[in-house]
Amino acid sequence: MKNIALIGSTGSIGTQTLDVIRKHPDRFNLISLAAGRNVERAIEQVQEFQPRVVAVERKQDAEKIQQQFGEFVKVFYGKEGLIEASVLHDADFLMNALVGSLGLEPTLQAMEAGVDIGIANKETLVTAGHLVTEKAKAHNVNLLPVDSEHSAIFQSLEGNRIDEVERLILTASGGSFREYTRDQLEGVSVEDALNHPNWNMGAKITIDSATMMNKGFEVMEAHWLFNIPYDDIEVLLHKESIIHSLVEYRDKSVLAQLGTPDMRVPIQYAMSYPERLELRDTNRLNLWEIGKLHFDKPDFDRYRCLRYAYEAGRTGGTLPAVLNAANEEAVKQFLQGKITFLSIEEHIEKALERHQVIAGPSLDTILEVDKETRAYVSSRIG
Amino acid sequence: MKNIALIGSTGSIGTQTLDVIRKHPDRFNLISLAAGRNVERAIEQVQEFQPRVVAVERKQDAEKIQQQFGEFVKVFYGKEGLIEASVLHDADFLMNALVGSLGLEPTLQAMEAGVDIGIANKETLVTAGHLVTEKAKAHNVNLLPVDSEHSAIFQSLEGNRIDEVERLILTASGGSFREYTRDQLEGVSVEDALNHPNWNMGAKITIDSATMMNKGFEVMEAHWLFNIPYDDIEVLLHKESIIHSLVEYRDKSVLAQLGTPDMRVPIQYAMSYPERLELRDTNRLNLWEIGKLHFDKPDFDRYRCLRYAYEAGRTGGTLPAVLNAANEEAVKQFLQGKITFLSIEEHIEKALERHQVIAGPSLDTILEVDKETRAYVSSRIG
Repeated sequence: MKNIALIGSTGSIGTQTLDVIRKHPDRFNLISLAAGRNVERAIEQVQEFQPRVVAVERKQDAEKIQQQFGEFVKVFYGKEGLIEASVLHDADFLMNALVGSLGLEPTLQAMEAGVDIGIANKETLVTAGHLVTEKAKAHNVNLLPVDSEHSAIFQSLEGNRIDEVERLILTASGGSFREYTRDQLEGVSVEDALNHPNWNMGAKITIDSATMMNKGFEVMEAHWLFNIPYDDIEVLLHKESIIHSLVEYRDKSVLAQLGTPDMRVPIQYAMSYPERLELRDTNRLNLWEIGKLHFDKPDFDRYRCLRYAYEAGRTGGTLPAVLNAANEEAVKQFLQGKITFLSIEEHIEKALERHQVIAGPSLDTILEVDKETRAYVSSRIG
Repeated sequence: MKNIALIGSTGSIGTQTLDVIRKHPDRFNLISLAAGRNVERAIEQVQEFQPRVVAVERKQDAEKIQQQFGEFVKVFYGKEGLIEASVLHDADFLMNALVGSLGLEPTLQAMEAGVDIGIANKETLVTAGHLVTEKAKAHNVNLLPVDSEHSAIFQSLEGNRIDEVERLILTASGGSFREYTRDQLEGVSVEDALNHPNWNMGAKITIDSATMMNKGFEVMEAHWLFNIPYDDIEVLLHKESIIHSLVEYRDKSVLAQLGTPDMRVPIQYAMSYPERLELRDTNRLNLWEIGKLHFDKPDFDRYRCLRYAYEAGRTGGTLPAVLNAANEEAVKQFLQGKITFLSIEEHIEKALERHQVIAGPSLDTILEVDKETRAYVSSRIG
């Protein structure tokens, strides 16, 4: 039985994590959950899974939940609440399913407590990959990827040696607008952008997928998770999202993980690793039903966010934190209808250009840069 | 340094095995080779690799080679010669690259001597899978697949548990005539049949590939190598031969091995396992260059040999030996221009129909059935 702590319980990854726990009550036990402002959903989850610790964003919501469940549950709120839900002495696994750089601190603290981490929150590695991987080493903690691409690479590395790897190949669906020219991208709406062809995800990540910033983050995440230089990480357009990613070895043998798009597969694998548990109510992959798989090279002028990500990753220091914060702020403003789709990348580019990179930044420096960058992008939009 | 014994040195797999040894002189040392009647080629190989033991088919050829190399080489001939070349006290690995059921006895004897076996000779497992796998267990010997499909499965199983496997999926190019209807198959010539679209192989296996008997043998081989029931082994048409085979696990995750068609990749992996060595002069797989991969379901009425193989495999006993011997004889006669392409399957069907199956046969029984079946098919052709 594994004791699971879950932060980000009401989002897409969070609810699917709970579905995996629901299907394997003999294997997984939810001991804590942290939600944001979706309190109704959180209450349902507490009723069903009866965690010992609950955290929400706001004090008034915490009080409401505490009143409803009484002494059976300890309820916390705010940033401290998030950490209370993450760092539990008897947790075996923390699923970090938060969106944005909010997930960084609880992850670092849980690692210090020796808890294995399921990394669904990619900003954690994007902004502070050097801190997270150092800490994992120091505390002998496993970082288990939850993204379908990184899980595919992780699975394709099992039983092999990392020093025999020649190349990681991350596949990319190309997002909602893969058939659009840059001119056509000019006028796209929030609704258009939220309509992803293959995966059913949260709003922020769906936009990141349309700009390919999501793939850029994944490149950076792969760099940190697998300790592979940026020159040996490639992106391959593959619109069917059936091959989830590939690893090329030095004998030119390529291993890949495939499947129908269902995030519960990588979520469950991160939780059950090194075992594989049954997953019954998902579709088997029958390639003859699909008939054809397509592949293409990404165009870095078409997908500028991808180029920025490689640049920020190669430069390192505080630049990845700038990339992430500028993107988070710009996407927020786009979702609120305040800026156009293409100006997302413009704001990011400006933020990257003006930043003076600090090498090997501490957590405080990263958080400072994050805040400062958001303020800058916000001020440009006005 | 691994000491390598190689039987079948002048064929396609044999020469590619020598190429792998040539490229890694610090890792592999050829201590014996066995060839058939291609004595000129064998002499060149002896000159280059200086094995201690050499075997050829005929006495006069053995004498010729003995004279040329004198005391540096021990030369044998015939079936005994084959065994002398296979069973050496200091061999670490026997590459069985023979074609046909000839490879069975030397393999069994080498296993008794504790030597790991590279199985390129599929008839060994097809006709005597129960004996070979029992012996491997008893003598704690590794059976390392060399076929690209089985190597793909073997690689896709690394780091995973066999009891978590739900399905093996063997890919098949469909052979030389994959676009032909049965009517069009009626008049095909030996030359047409020898022109395989993806792989450059020997004559027998190219014909087996066109009839899909080769794929049928591979299904049987997979059954024995990985201990998976026939119901859980599928064949998938994939004309590009880029995905070499796949494994589906119980969490519906599918792992696959891919690559450009180059038999040296699986040959080298069998020899270097569990390590991977560099392979420089082969093409990297760039899926964006290929653009599309195609998949289809095989039609068991179109490919009758595939159906016979499943039937013979499921029935077991001596029936697989009948299948193999009838096929070997019929293909031989086709290559000699004595029968038509479609009558290959007719002869096989007749031989299967008339045979009275003996369960759990000994090696002697298998060899007897083999001989008797060949005589029967030969007599039908006249």
